[in-house]
Amino acid sequence: MGAGVTYPEGFLAAGVSCGIKPDGQKDLALVFSVKDCVASGCFTTNQFKAHSLVWSQKHLPSASVRIILANSGNANACNGPSSRELTVHLAEKTGQLFDLPASSVLLASTGIIGRPLPLEKLLAALPELKQNLSRDGHLSAARAIMTTDTHPKEAQRETGLTGRRKSVVIGGMAKGAGMIKPHLATMLCFLTTDAVIEEKALSLALQEAVDDSFNMITVDNDQSTNDTVLLLANGLAGNQTIHPETEAYQAFARSLKELCQELARAIAFDGEGASKSVEVRITGAFSRQDARKAARQIAGSNLVKTALAGGWPNWGRILAAVGSTNVRLDPLKIRVKLCGIEVYHGQPVPFSDQEIKRRLAGKEIQIDLDLGRGQHQATAWGCDLTEEYVKINREE
Amino acid sequence: MGAGVTYPEGFLAAGVSCGIKPDGQKDLALVFSVKDCVASGCFTTNQFKAHSLVWSQKHLPSASVRIILANSGNANACNGPSSRELTVHLAEKTGQLFDLPASSVLLASTGIIGRPLPLEKLLAALPELKQNLSRDGHLSAARAIMTTDTHPKEAQRETGLTGRRKSVVIGGMAKGAGMIKPHLATMLCFLTTDAVIEEKALSLALQEAVDDSFNMITVDNDQSTNDTVLLLANGLAGNQTIHPETEAYQAFARSLKELCQELARAIAFDGEGASKSVEVRITGAFSRQDARKAARQIAGSNLVKTALAGGWPNWGRILAAVGSTNVRLDPLKIRVKLCGIEVYHGQPVPFSDQEIKRRLAGKEIQIDLDLGRGQHQATAWGCDLTEEYVKINREE
Repeated sequence: MGAGVTYPEGFLAAGVSCGIKPDGQKDLALVFSVKDCVASGCFTTNQFKAHSLVWSQKHLPSASVRIILANSGNANACNGPSSRELTVHLAEKTGQLFDLPASSVLLASTGIIGRPLPLEKLLAALPELKQNLSRDGHLSAARAIMTTDTHPKEAQRETGLTGRRKSVVIGGMAKGAGMIKPHLATMLCFLTTDAVIEEKALSLALQEAVDDSFNMITVDNDQSTNDTVLLLANGLAGNQTIHPETEAYQAFARSLKELCQELARAIAFDGEGASKSVEVRITGAFSRQDARKAARQIAGSNLVKTALAGGWPNWGRILAAVGSTNVRLDPLKIRVKLCGIEVYHGQPVPFSDQEIKRRLAGKEIQIDLDLGRGQHQATAWGCDLTEEYVKINREE
Repeated sequence: MGAGVTYPEGFLAAGVSCGIKPDGQKDLALVFSVKDCVASGCFTTNQFKAHSLVWSQKHLPSASVRIILANSGNANACNGPSSRELTVHLAEKTGQLFDLPASSVLLASTGIIGRPLPLEKLLAALPELKQNLSRDGHLSAARAIMTTDTHPKEAQRETGLTGRRKSVVIGGMAKGAGMIKPHLATMLCFLTTDAVIEEKALSLALQEAVDDSFNMITVDNDQSTNDTVLLLANGLAGNQTIHPETEAYQAFARSLKELCQELARAIAFDGEGASKSVEVRITGAFSRQDARKAARQIAGSNLVKTALAGGWPNWGRILAAVGSTNVRLDPLKIRVKLCGIEVYHGQPVPFSDQEIKRRLAGKEIQIDLDLGRGQHQATAWGCDLTEEYVKINREE
């Protein structure tokens, strides 16, 4: 029985060390489907895109994906046109090893920008990767895509749908870094399912899930050169084909979103140097867009995050952060709660300093903000900002 | 002979401790003109505005300003409607002490958000402030508006214009904090001149100067609840009235901009915990707006700033930062220089690691970026990001 990306039937995975990371840690992962997959992806909006990402984006959506090959330690971005050619070569060689066309191979990379793609190292490790493929390989694969992550991130969900052969499930793994503002931290997420699903339904469900998960740990659409989410469906459950706007679609989309939110939270809470997780819940917004913007602005504010690191109930920084946006709000109705304690309602509300500091000393911080302007809501996730973050990022 | 805000004739200043700051440091400043001033101001775009700021904004532009009263230690923001009334009272009482209408008094505040205005302390200190007014008081005043600044910031300029009585000069003082992204650090700047100048010309020159100085140390128009720039002209130089679109206007506006840039750089380089100053110069932009956006995005990037703190030539983070915006750029023509050494020109350019690290170890970092799309340019100023910044901001 697999887990993570091998939780759905027909998916195998492996992770090995190919020598990119100097310390001999795993740095190359492969996810393999025994059957052609319907596949879709979401990608960074950064103008500098990694060659690996460009390759995958060009081939999606697709009905014949079999492989995801992902390396860590080298971003394969901003490294010149020669690496673009090496990238094509990598996909071709990987396909050949499995007797598959290059177009059935998706690529992803994360790591240092500007270094040439180490094609020889990657090619040399492919046979071992192939040999190691198994349903147990999910954890090795999850480890092999890590950079500054402190632990691998995997999750799986039952959809409640059943097929001819088995129940429909979804699995996935992710890596992040959840920096101060995560926009420059590469986020990779690979999702697998044994559902039979139409490409349009798959793409729609993925976009909706990403919007309410990974896009709520980023700020202002600032994204890295490499951010990639891939979803592969091999159809082995034998369910009736899922089409948009059906009950089956709703069930599938809901499970997918929950799974993505679990992985997104895991990324945000594993932020570099983070000591606390932060959840920002906006209510009373004039529009969905306002709610999302307010949530991300607060979750991404350096000053809010440093205050939380210090366990300091500085709601002034929260108001200043949301006030610096054009999000519609009613200054006389706005309400702020910190870990469940109301601290502001149009004006400061007296609170027990001792009790709030006790709660802020915990590992999980909730910030609730009602904007007093409507019915829309949104949630964003992040972490606090510590000296350790700076230490990690100032080092080469 | 005065300096800073008392450099122009007819301006006096003083700074005292009124007891807001717990350590007995100066926290209340007053700038006084012996003659009615034409005055203009630029203010934060934050939706939560300090009561002091709202008072000043309501009375500007004006032809009869005599006083700026500014406190540190208390932001007088988000502290409820009762403090709004106290603020009006403060202006009235200050005016009464000088036999002036309240409308001739401008107010500014900086410090902690959400605490009631300590009116009694402020009023009790007014007589001492009045008594201490002198041309030598500029430095005391500059100290009294400091918060986490490590040193007072003053500057002055000759305009090259001459009047019946004397040459036209401009002086000023400022406080900042130059945080990671300065948008939530309150910036105050008070400017004085003895020029005879029409209100429209004064307002226009101030807006232009602020655009190319203080607005280039902020990011995305995110601003604090209290950001304020005030400019007072008392006309004592006796020059011919300065009107817009004249040579005299150009001379005045140029000097004012230089002065503002000197103070803005001083704010940026005195960022909390900063160990290096950073200047980001954009050329080859499609539009002025693109150039400004790119410069501020890079100067405000946490990842760029932590890399600089570590003295690491990570140009990949610079490209990723500008790529995350919608600024028009040509990936094949884009050029990056770090402290004068080209490191990227459409692809990585080999450079001496030893030499670049030697330069990055210095106190002054220049980043030059040519976007390869046009003729527009802009410059932004900032500082690196150190563990010390986090330490300062996590403490209450």
